Amino acid sequence: GLTLLDRRTEKRTDSKWLSKKQSHPTTVYILFSNLSPLVTSGREIESSQQPKVKLCRLHHKDVEQYMNQTEEDILIFLGVELQFHMNLPIACNGGALQEGEEDGLVAWFALSVDSASAEKFKQKHEDCYFLHPPMPALLQLPEKEAGVVAQARSVLAWHNRYRFCPTCGSATKIEEGGYKKICLKEGCPSLQGVHNTSYPRVDPVVIMQVIHPDGNHCLLGRQKRFPPGMFTCLAGFVEPGETIEDAVRREVEEEAGVKVGRVQYVSCQPWPMPSSLMIGCLAVAVSTEIKVDKNEIEDARWFTREQVVEVLTKRSQRSFFVPPGRAIAHQLMKHWIGMNP
Amino acid sequence: GLTLLDRRTEKRTDSKWLSKKQSHPTTVYILFSNLSPLVTSGREIESSQQPKVKLCRLHHKDVEQYMNQTEEDILIFLGVELQFHMNLPIACNGGALQEGEEDGLVAWFALSVDSASAEKFKQKHEDCYFLHPPMPALLQLPEKEAGVVAQARSVLAWHNRYRFCPTCGSATKIEEGGYKKICLKEGCPSLQGVHNTSYPRVDPVVIMQVIHPDGNHCLLGRQKRFPPGMFTCLAGFVEPGETIEDAVRREVEEEAGVKVGRVQYVSCQPWPMPSSLMIGCLAVAVSTEIKVDKNEIEDARWFTREQVVEVLTKRSQRSFFVPPGRAIAHQLMKHWIGMNP
Ligand SMILES: Nc1ncnc2c1ncn2[C@@H]1O[C@H](COP(=O)(O)O)[C@@H](O)[C@H]1O
Ligand SMILES: Nc1ncnc2c1ncn2[C@@H]1O[C@H](COP(=O)(O)O)[C@@H](O)[C@H]1O
Repeated sequence: GLTLLDRRTEKRTDSKWLSKKQSHPTTVYILFSNLSPLVTSGREIESSQQPKVKLCRLHHKDVEQYMNQTEEDILIFLGVELQFHMNLPIACNGGALQEGEEDGLVAWFALSVDSASAEKFKQKHEDCYFLHPPMPALLQLPEKEAGVVAQARSVLAWHNRYRFCPTCGSATKIEEGGYKKICLKEGCPSLQGVHNTSYPRVDPVVIMQVIHPDGNHCLLGRQKRFPPGMFTCLAGFVEPGETIEDAVRREVEEEAGVKVGRVQYVSCQPWPMPSSLMIGCLAVAVSTEIKVDKNEIEDARWFTREQVVEVLTKRSQRSFFVPPGRAIAHQLMKHWIGMNP
Repeated sequence: GLTLLDRRTEKRTDSKWLSKKQSHPTTVYILFSNLSPLVTSGREIESSQQPKVKLCRLHHKDVEQYMNQTEEDILIFLGVELQFHMNLPIACNGGALQEGEEDGLVAWFALSVDSASAEKFKQKHEDCYFLHPPMPALLQLPEKEAGVVAQARSVLAWHNRYRFCPTCGSATKIEEGGYKKICLKEGCPSLQGVHNTSYPRVDPVVIMQVIHPDGNHCLLGRQKRFPPGMFTCLAGFVEPGETIEDAVRREVEEEAGVKVGRVQYVSCQPWPMPSSLMIGCLAVAVSTEIKVDKNEIEDARWFTREQVVEVLTKRSQRSFFVPPGRAIAHQLMKHWIGMNP
């Protein structure tokens, strides 16, 4: 499994449990400042494949002085450690424990602090720093930790941008372990029924490896803001009322003027910039002429299978390069050339 | 193809073109009141498979007196008719036309009016009515029209609920043919860079046909608010930082206590209630004992393949029933029993 935590969503409404876990000595805190997680350099740097940074796993005693200092401080319940939980007898999950009895679950929280607290913290812990800018640095984290950061960063980015009730403009308060936002104005329509204004946003994005009708070329493009020489799969937001497959066809035609027929889902990846779900597809082109929309991308070209194999396997003398192994675009390319397990 | 319109997203920023099309005699308007579309009863009601209602396609002269009457009136550009556009010479798409020359594209708009205008309109057009409540009535529309309604209704629901800037609480104005919302307060952080607060929301939801380890049963459940006897696939929102596959596993375990191994994407469907993207999957269970979470669902049971075949093919003497053919849950069940093309 690639996940580190079991979200235990039912605990979000159990405020007693949450507050007990907050001060429990085994509880793990990860710290954020300005949407960047606190990390430290990993010990093992023998292999260059090795992740170079890892999350600082803090405890209540390390962070308590920074909690609830200002309005900016936000606490998110992330879940409980999966490993430990799997080893427990089933009774512990079912609620067979006595009231107040210790359940042995190791809870994780994300704590976001303001810049002043972040500075103070760094002075005390010299080996730690906030990973900034987040991209591509987040791709250096071990895969399991990247998932936890994606979860925490998405929810924190939501709180950062969605401070007021979009329905009436009033102030809101955070509930349910950080996953719900409630309007403070009596009578606001958002307080009746279930509305998505109260819940974190997840934006679905399609990202596609477009295959030439000859089966031996693929379409890669680049945006102006990319580092020089980098090419990657085309991508774009799914629109309201649109299927994944139609979004793929629309985006490829809009950005590169190429028509797509068959579309096949491959895999997906959460992308916390700020809160996307990247849905990776193979797309078979039914036309070949490229007409780049300069408003959207800077360039798009057909690359041969050999070129893609080369760029994915060799390290030197490349005329172009692609995103690193952790990125879903890289995985889609590997999938196409048959390099995936 | 199942789509009626080409969204032509690049026209959203072409305000000259939009305003010309608004008053063009071929332009089609569909009317909404309170998020319900204006429909009329179809002529052909021989076969019971036949859709029973269809959208009223109005023209500028039918609606102009209801436009810009109150703040509630919202206009959304939906796209241009695909059929017509496909027949045109390529030059028409490329912008080779003279300034101001007619491009022959048939534009569609959704117009949402307040209740007073809706009443006035209905008095004039006795064969038309607003489809309410939207579900399950929307499933009666012809498939292509359902897609257009999904698009329009999702965007209108977004305007309905997101009236104020979530970042600063100020009023906003609508731009780009209805697909963008801009904060009116100078200096608001939402005015710098690209932020999702300005764009319509699309909430990804997983919906899954869970297969028993024996391959011959599937797991269907029901919520308390369902009509008596109706069972359907389990479903739930994808969370921030979560993959589609993990969301499937989490939801099935949360709602029914069943553990899922392999997950396979099948197809998806936009669901404008208010603005979801239903992502349909097959999920293979690796445990069989059902423990229903009564907070989430009322019941969940293993049904045999024969029971599912029967409920999908026969009309009488059924001990339970499932959502209608247009619903993705129905399609997933058909996919499992091999009834799909
Ligand atoms: N975007 C969302 N919109 C509505 N409900 C959500 C959303 N995200 C999570 N939820 C949760 O899903 C529940 C409603 O699910 P449902 O019964 O499927 O409508 C709510 O009570 C929320 O806890
Ligand atoms: N949820 C969203 N968040 C950000 N941009 C969006 C969203 N939905 C649509 N867009 C559009 O996508 C463009 C940014 O795309 P990108 O260059 O991929 O970041 C924006 O200029 C918007 O027009």
